[in-house]
Amino acid sequence: MIICDDMEIKDYFDAKRRIAGIVHKLPLEFSKYFSDMAGANVYLKCENRQKTGSFKVRGAYNKIARLVEKGRPSSVVACSMGNHAQAVAFAATEAGVKSSIVMPTKAPIVKIEATRGYGAEVVLHGDTYSDASDHAREIEAKTGAVFIPGFDDDDVISGAGTVGLEILEDLINVNTIIIPAGGGGILAGVAYAVKHINPQVRIIGVQSEGANALYTSFKSGTLVTSATSTFADGIAVQKPGIRPYEIIRDYVDDIVLVSDDEIADAMIGLLERCKQVVEPSGAASLAAIATGKVNVRGQNVVCIVSGGNLDLEVVARLIERYVAKRKQGGK
Amino acid sequence: MIICDDMEIKDYFDAKRRIAGIVHKLPLEFSKYFSDMAGANVYLKCENRQKTGSFKVRGAYNKIARLVEKGRPSSVVACSMGNHAQAVAFAATEAGVKSSIVMPTKAPIVKIEATRGYGAEVVLHGDTYSDASDHAREIEAKTGAVFIPGFDDDDVISGAGTVGLEILEDLINVNTIIIPAGGGGILAGVAYAVKHINPQVRIIGVQSEGANALYTSFKSGTLVTSATSTFADGIAVQKPGIRPYEIIRDYVDDIVLVSDDEIADAMIGLLERCKQVVEPSGAASLAAIATGKVNVRGQNVVCIVSGGNLDLEVVARLIERYVAKRKQGGK
Repeated sequence: MIICDDMEIKDYFDAKRRIAGIVHKLPLEFSKYFSDMAGANVYLKCENRQKTGSFKVRGAYNKIARLVEKGRPSSVVACSMGNHAQAVAFAATEAGVKSSIVMPTKAPIVKIEATRGYGAEVVLHGDTYSDASDHAREIEAKTGAVFIPGFDDDDVISGAGTVGLEILEDLINVNTIIIPAGGGGILAGVAYAVKHINPQVRIIGVQSEGANALYTSFKSGTLVTSATSTFADGIAVQKPGIRPYEIIRDYVDDIVLVSDDEIADAMIGLLERCKQVVEPSGAASLAAIATGKVNVRGQNVVCIVSGGNLDLEVVARLIERYVAKRKQGGK
Repeated sequence: MIICDDMEIKDYFDAKRRIAGIVHKLPLEFSKYFSDMAGANVYLKCENRQKTGSFKVRGAYNKIARLVEKGRPSSVVACSMGNHAQAVAFAATEAGVKSSIVMPTKAPIVKIEATRGYGAEVVLHGDTYSDASDHAREIEAKTGAVFIPGFDDDDVISGAGTVGLEILEDLINVNTIIIPAGGGGILAGVAYAVKHINPQVRIIGVQSEGANALYTSFKSGTLVTSATSTFADGIAVQKPGIRPYEIIRDYVDDIVLVSDDEIADAMIGLLERCKQVVEPSGAASLAAIATGKVNVRGQNVVCIVSGGNLDLEVVARLIERYVAKRKQGGK
């Protein structure tokens, strides 16, 4: 095991202290449905019900709170059309710092409103994520606002890694932790934290078949980028972070791929049996065990349910697909 | 306050001891969305994620466990096409007692399978609930199986009332508890338990406009029956229980009515903002505060979310209705 000498496990406990009282610590939830399916004891870490609807708030708040400790920044800026937008908006407001979030003009009005609702100034700019991101960097250069990255940052990674500390607190004898991965922030953070406390715990990442840059990088040993085509927008990342990749390479046991269909089935199981709304990326961890792509038989397993923000129209379409399948199956 | 002298608060603590380790004690969940809407601190008691998907398991298990204490029954029988079916099936299996659940032949296959999955023998009989209920009583007479009522029974009421004890444990300074009501079991149980511990806590029941027998009884001072027409099947009860009614009359502060549309809006809020699947009856408590029918401004409020079992097709239809409304509204 290579030791990343510019990061320490202490950073994770510092992050945990910073976010205490700001983010929820939701208890693990045992799922009989997924346990029966996997032949294991399956627990959900429900970050879909986290503040702002995803784990992203942990890294964003840790980053901003550390900036404040070093000397309050005049403002922060970020670019996202997803969970990171709401996370930074909320975290900045909690820390008493102004925030500007750049979103592409095509961003859904619901997400724009949610981000505004958390107190951010929303700047609509450009057609693509890339246009918006360039504009965020311009704002950074022009105004001195501090740019808050989505995953490629040690403070963001250690913030996300607090999920790992909480899992160990609640289930000391966990055998395997399964984690959705896009940019790699939460996979890296949880892997680093957990392996430093108990290297016996197996850490498995899950990517979508249609967005597999981290998987390909992990398997080939070289960080690659790749085009994305998946409905799991939360993990549809073309270019994983360098810093997360280095940690993942050293501390993660394996990464597996799941299809959009397999994710959709897991989402239905979560809706119907666990009574939870989970976004596609958040359900990827359950898809990995429901399909047997990760063998967890007889083990204590925690699946991280990373977020719950999605357009309800997607939920309606999934249900219709499921009902049609059930009718075809004669049930 | 009239004291019901054949029931004691001790019965509720006995029930709590019996169900410990069998049912979940889920923590209260603060909802920023509903808090902002009501101008209050709103907490959800999420019995939708309870074992078998509703609070009903508490009463069923307490009843069966008490029977076992007095001398193990050969078997139990119940009639339900809803949450009580799954609750009795699960509770009986946990207590090591055989169960037969009579369901009308038209009961949805999903509910039949779930009830069988919990270990019950499912007997399909008759077209209506009333036919099925008569058949359950025949089985009782013929086989000596003990009939487990859905709500009109002191042990079932005190089992449901354990929700109230848990609320007081978790939020000592609660001001108002809002509770969906059909037969009246959980409303009576929580009212009795809470008022004996802290009479200052306001207890409010919620019924559907289309199934208001308990409301009418409460307001008129006489127990009445009335036809039902609501999509909130969990609280669509024509004839409330005599025993629950007596307790409600003495201990409940008020009962309000909500429309199916108001319930549907609350369900969407729970899906979109709280990431939770809640059945119509379970969302009635949130509908009551979202519409201002119960004024809770400035208070600490707990809304009991009584269950989460519903056909996902209903969820899909609700979302379509909501999306159409949103588009009409120009959002």
